[in-house]
Amino acid sequence: MTITNEKMRFWSPEVRELEPYVPGEQPKIQNLLKLNTNENPYPPSPKVVEALEKQLSNQADVLRLYPDPDASVLKEAIAQQQKIQADHIFVGNGSDEVLAHIFKAFFQQEEPVLYSDITYSFYPVYSQFFNTQTKVIPLNEHFEIDIRDYQQPNGGIIITNPNAPTSIALPLSEIEKLLKDHPNRVVVIDEAYVDFGAESAVSLVAHYENLVVCQTTSKSRSLAGLRVGYAIAQPHLIAALETVKNSFNSYPIDRLAIAAAVASFEDQPYFEAHCNKVIESREKLIADLKILDFDVLPSKANFIFTSHQHEKANILAEKLREQGVIVRYFNKPRIDNFLRITIGTDEENKRLVDSLKDILETV
Amino acid sequence: MTITNEKMRFWSPEVRELEPYVPGEQPKIQNLLKLNTNENPYPPSPKVVEALEKQLSNQADVLRLYPDPDASVLKEAIAQQQKIQADHIFVGNGSDEVLAHIFKAFFQQEEPVLYSDITYSFYPVYSQFFNTQTKVIPLNEHFEIDIRDYQQPNGGIIITNPNAPTSIALPLSEIEKLLKDHPNRVVVIDEAYVDFGAESAVSLVAHYENLVVCQTTSKSRSLAGLRVGYAIAQPHLIAALETVKNSFNSYPIDRLAIAAAVASFEDQPYFEAHCNKVIESREKLIADLKILDFDVLPSKANFIFTSHQHEKANILAEKLREQGVIVRYFNKPRIDNFLRITIGTDEENKRLVDSLKDILETV
Repeated sequence: MTITNEKMRFWSPEVRELEPYVPGEQPKIQNLLKLNTNENPYPPSPKVVEALEKQLSNQADVLRLYPDPDASVLKEAIAQQQKIQADHIFVGNGSDEVLAHIFKAFFQQEEPVLYSDITYSFYPVYSQFFNTQTKVIPLNEHFEIDIRDYQQPNGGIIITNPNAPTSIALPLSEIEKLLKDHPNRVVVIDEAYVDFGAESAVSLVAHYENLVVCQTTSKSRSLAGLRVGYAIAQPHLIAALETVKNSFNSYPIDRLAIAAAVASFEDQPYFEAHCNKVIESREKLIADLKILDFDVLPSKANFIFTSHQHEKANILAEKLREQGVIVRYFNKPRIDNFLRITIGTDEENKRLVDSLKDILETV
Repeated sequence: MTITNEKMRFWSPEVRELEPYVPGEQPKIQNLLKLNTNENPYPPSPKVVEALEKQLSNQADVLRLYPDPDASVLKEAIAQQQKIQADHIFVGNGSDEVLAHIFKAFFQQEEPVLYSDITYSFYPVYSQFFNTQTKVIPLNEHFEIDIRDYQQPNGGIIITNPNAPTSIALPLSEIEKLLKDHPNRVVVIDEAYVDFGAESAVSLVAHYENLVVCQTTSKSRSLAGLRVGYAIAQPHLIAALETVKNSFNSYPIDRLAIAAAVASFEDQPYFEAHCNKVIESREKLIADLKILDFDVLPSKANFIFTSHQHEKANILAEKLREQGVIVRYFNKPRIDNFLRITIGTDEENKRLVDSLKDILETV
């Protein structure tokens, strides 16, 4: 929509300049193979359905009451699963909201927050939203984070690990070095994809007063539809996040989302089994794609980042779409010849590979 | 928790100064009569449960997918019920989030936003959060808004109507005058309680390019547990809210909340019948309290604001609590001898009146 200058007078001046985040499409088409937003191909634990059914008994009478603004039962469930105390947990309406609060709570400093040139594209949006100074640190030529590049004055550091959309993980030893290098600044490790094979920094939380780890139930717990994210850190950092949250929205997580997420954290065997399934399918898919002359970055996520040795990524993405397969293409410097492809079930991955075979034979 | 100065170094400087909102308690005690947070005493429409059950079929497979970031089916359902076009609707994670986005989208101006001294206590918190200039306009001696007091340079106006915690409604004709008085500023009418007998300003949206109406499903639709609020305005104002929202959190409303809210908006007879029940119970409660020497402000909300002719409000609140009845008491200038009491069912109101009789006989 175009808004006339005359009507723009109602907008706050700085909002006129905002450039919002653009989420991956959620097309409403049947029979589409949707490999573009890194959702889990498996449903959540059956315990989640049981917990939700329980909330709906007695005419859903419970829905008329506000949820617990602190979501304490959810914090307890996460704490148990993560083997940490509940006062080390902050919860929010998806990890996007948690990250927004992180930018407000820690990164409004005189020095710039550092993040890499190729990473979650919401970080520059939050920075603009909260008027945060930023400095972009390029990944090295192998699309890896080199923590030596971060040795400079800063107002905080945020790293996605495994990184998105590259899928490459940073070893825990490197993260620990980073924490030691910057003892007076908050270092945030955004672990949206960590459960698919990378090393989590949660084990370092007890030892580093400057570490915030951010995770989500949207990927490894198949709850993207319910919007529950969380942060793990020492209590003096959690308190900053609570202060921000309670100055913005007291009740961000609804009763059904709380009940569902609790049930998910309580079913560890289902969680582990289904993460392993995705990891196995990923390795099989990578092998299949290499046969078709795709180069694939080493992935520890539930997606891969790949380029073909001969065919252009944007052309492949278009032709896949014609076959009803949607993958994510970023028309951005350095990565404009790559595709980000979510790991599906083995059957779905086979359909992707068959479609690609088809396309590559006819170009 | 006390945080040492040394650990405070990690917080953004301006977050160290924030004074968060304090929501009404959500005590986890059985048999408590909870008349402190203006929840509806009736459950949501049975259609809500049906819609949620449908989402849970097939192992809740649908929860693994992100919700529609635009929640378009919900916007359509609200538009139908409100008899307005869907491009006039913005939805958020409870009206608290909608209000936060409103402060960012419209009120970061050089001149101060105006609101009354006695009103929703989250407004000063949002103002601090977004560094908004503010000017507080006292209610008149009858606790009413006098719109002539708002005739001064401003960066926007926000009015709760009916006002909280006073329960008094401003007539639509006065709101229309306000809109005409300030054609270059956004006027927000926060109608959280409008469905219990006040006149909604939604009928003015088509005629005023500076009007934003904010409503919620938490009170009149018995969905406080699910966090769905919305704003109604012309598209050039909705666009500002979408810009802010998409710079903060793309998917604020989850799939279950969307499905439940849609079902609620589609069941107009249930909605009307239960609003009327609350209104009838309110009038009966007011009559009963007047017999006990309570003065009650004229209420158009699902709560009343009352003071006793002889006994102190804080003492009454304490003694009610001893009897397992919780009401809201604000220890603030001008209103520190009032109680805000949510309307319950007739049975619940009778328990309240009986408790008060008991208390008044023994003091």
